Amino acid sequence: MQQQLTLQDIYRARRRIAGLALRTPLVRSEALSRRWDCEVWLKLDSLQPTGSFKLRGALNALLGLEPMQRERGVVTMSTGNFGRALAYAGQHLGIPVTVCISRLVPNNKVEALRQSGAELVIHGDCQDDADREARRLRDEQGLAYVPPFDDPLVIAGQGTCGLEIMEEQPDIDLLFAGLSGGGLIAGLGLAVKSVNPAAEVVGVSMREGAAMLASLAAGHPLQVPEVHSLADSLGGGIGLDNAWTFAMTQRYMDRGYKVDEVQIARAMLHFLHEEKMLVEGAAAVGVAAVEQHRLELSGRRVAFVVSGRNLSNETFAEACRLAGERPYAYL
Amino acid sequence: MQQQLTLQDIYRARRRIAGLALRTPLVRSEALSRRWDCEVWLKLDSLQPTGSFKLRGALNALLGLEPMQRERGVVTMSTGNFGRALAYAGQHLGIPVTVCISRLVPNNKVEALRQSGAELVIHGDCQDDADREARRLRDEQGLAYVPPFDDPLVIAGQGTCGLEIMEEQPDIDLLFAGLSGGGLIAGLGLAVKSVNPAAEVVGVSMREGAAMLASLAAGHPLQVPEVHSLADSLGGGIGLDNAWTFAMTQRYMDRGYKVDEVQIARAMLHFLHEEKMLVEGAAAVGVAAVEQHRLELSGRRVAFVVSGRNLSNETFAEACRLAGERPYAYL
Repeated sequence: MQQQLTLQDIYRARRRIAGLALRTPLVRSEALSRRWDCEVWLKLDSLQPTGSFKLRGALNALLGLEPMQRERGVVTMSTGNFGRALAYAGQHLGIPVTVCISRLVPNNKVEALRQSGAELVIHGDCQDDADREARRLRDEQGLAYVPPFDDPLVIAGQGTCGLEIMEEQPDIDLLFAGLSGGGLIAGLGLAVKSVNPAAEVVGVSMREGAAMLASLAAGHPLQVPEVHSLADSLGGGIGLDNAWTFAMTQRYMDRGYKVDEVQIARAMLHFLHEEKMLVEGAAAVGVAAVEQHRLELSGRRVAFVVSGRNLSNETFAEACRLAGERPYAYL
Repeated sequence: MQQQLTLQDIYRARRRIAGLALRTPLVRSEALSRRWDCEVWLKLDSLQPTGSFKLRGALNALLGLEPMQRERGVVTMSTGNFGRALAYAGQHLGIPVTVCISRLVPNNKVEALRQSGAELVIHGDCQDDADREARRLRDEQGLAYVPPFDDPLVIAGQGTCGLEIMEEQPDIDLLFAGLSGGGLIAGLGLAVKSVNPAAEVVGVSMREGAAMLASLAAGHPLQVPEVHSLADSLGGGIGLDNAWTFAMTQRYMDRGYKVDEVQIARAMLHFLHEEKMLVEGAAAVGVAAVEQHRLELSGRRVAFVVSGRNLSNETFAEACRLAGERPYAYL
């Protein structure tokens, strides 16, 4: 039987990544607290140096390598935020990082990766092609393969976000986060349930391509076609050979919701107008879920992980169109 | 001779306000570091619960009251951020707060004050009228008058922002902040120079109505006509009977700059496009000063206080027009 992660792993991660990842603020949202008659807190992991929570896990993974592996370097497959985080972590730790992406990755993300200091390999026409290339480079060049989510060190790193939330607001009743490969939900869930088993963990995915929700419904990892979404950071599969995040999501996630693109768009505009910040679609799915499913939160204490701010101008324009709003209609 | 503030007062302030004001993050700006070939850090005091750094000083002022004064309550004059901060602090501490404003205060700020839990008194047609009314209520109702900036407890509170910056980046060479009544610059200056006397403190005001810069040039407090500006939080005089901030600004501020409205507008758009946040004009004047005066920052370590996020949609629209940019021109 596989060993399980515990809160101890998250504390170890925190000690390792301290000073490199930001301890991000947990701020109250007056606007959402009033709208839903409850206490709403926003965990601003969008403020991490690489613009997303992924830096936590990437740092913990690299800091957990053996000295020989650190010298040889690592390789990963990514469509965006994890690659950027691993590149940043590698540069700060002096570890060579190779990121494999497919030809489908949009230009703005390619540009960010080019400036990140990582070796960039563009290969094939889909995520699976890029992943095969990453594993080939692992074997050929002796690089360590760092999975973007299905890895105990990565999960423990993401869990530090949940630990920070519980330290500041131990009475949180409900925690919403985006659900993709499950690295964030697994880490958060472990942290939150270790502190308060009664706190509910809610994962939210976009309507189409919600691989983890489909897998949970089937009872085993499933492949699901990837579809364009405003929440592009939530795209991609969970891996048919999933070793960690599927079981941990089964165990720690209390509920999962899907949200429509128009609701994601409206939630993104809420963040701009009321919270004065531009966030990714993936960072807004929790707010979208409350609105779309008319969740009753009255009197409860609710936290949302604002997972990232890496959105392109084009994606934001798309959100405005979808929400039926000219941005700054008052102009 | 008047007693002087020391770093000890700032440490006392920090102990008092801990848990009520946020210890805000100091984040690196990749975009500005690249543009100016230096290390740029942004102190995000815009994330404070009331949307501006003013909460630090307001809390410290109320927490420093005698028990009898706490019961009777306080009164202040404000055109925005300080009133909101004092109202919030009063509500959290159970201290009645009265805020006097003039009929000139724009509707969105009146609305925010109405929702703040403070007693709102609208009186007269200018800031001076409102101030006279505040002092009348002090005398008539036995309220304690809390000045928005020219007060040792308020200054020490604002100084906690500088202390946090120096703790995280003790090697900062240059610190930029908005300059209005001088409460922020006085507190920051005291904190920064106590840690490193060689660090430079730079204050920035808008072109018209820069009361402190005019007063410094004259060698004594001067009255200057108030003019509409994108940096509305920097408006207002320093008081002809200024007791604290004039002398402290003289002592601690190394340089002062004025910036034009169009440069403030461009800096606000920089924050939106590159840093993914909407900030007040007053929060953007430091970036505007570097651009307008072509300051050479190569190789230096520079911090900017991002002082607030309380801007109305109308003001942002004005910034877009001034910068000659349709917001989201790619739409």
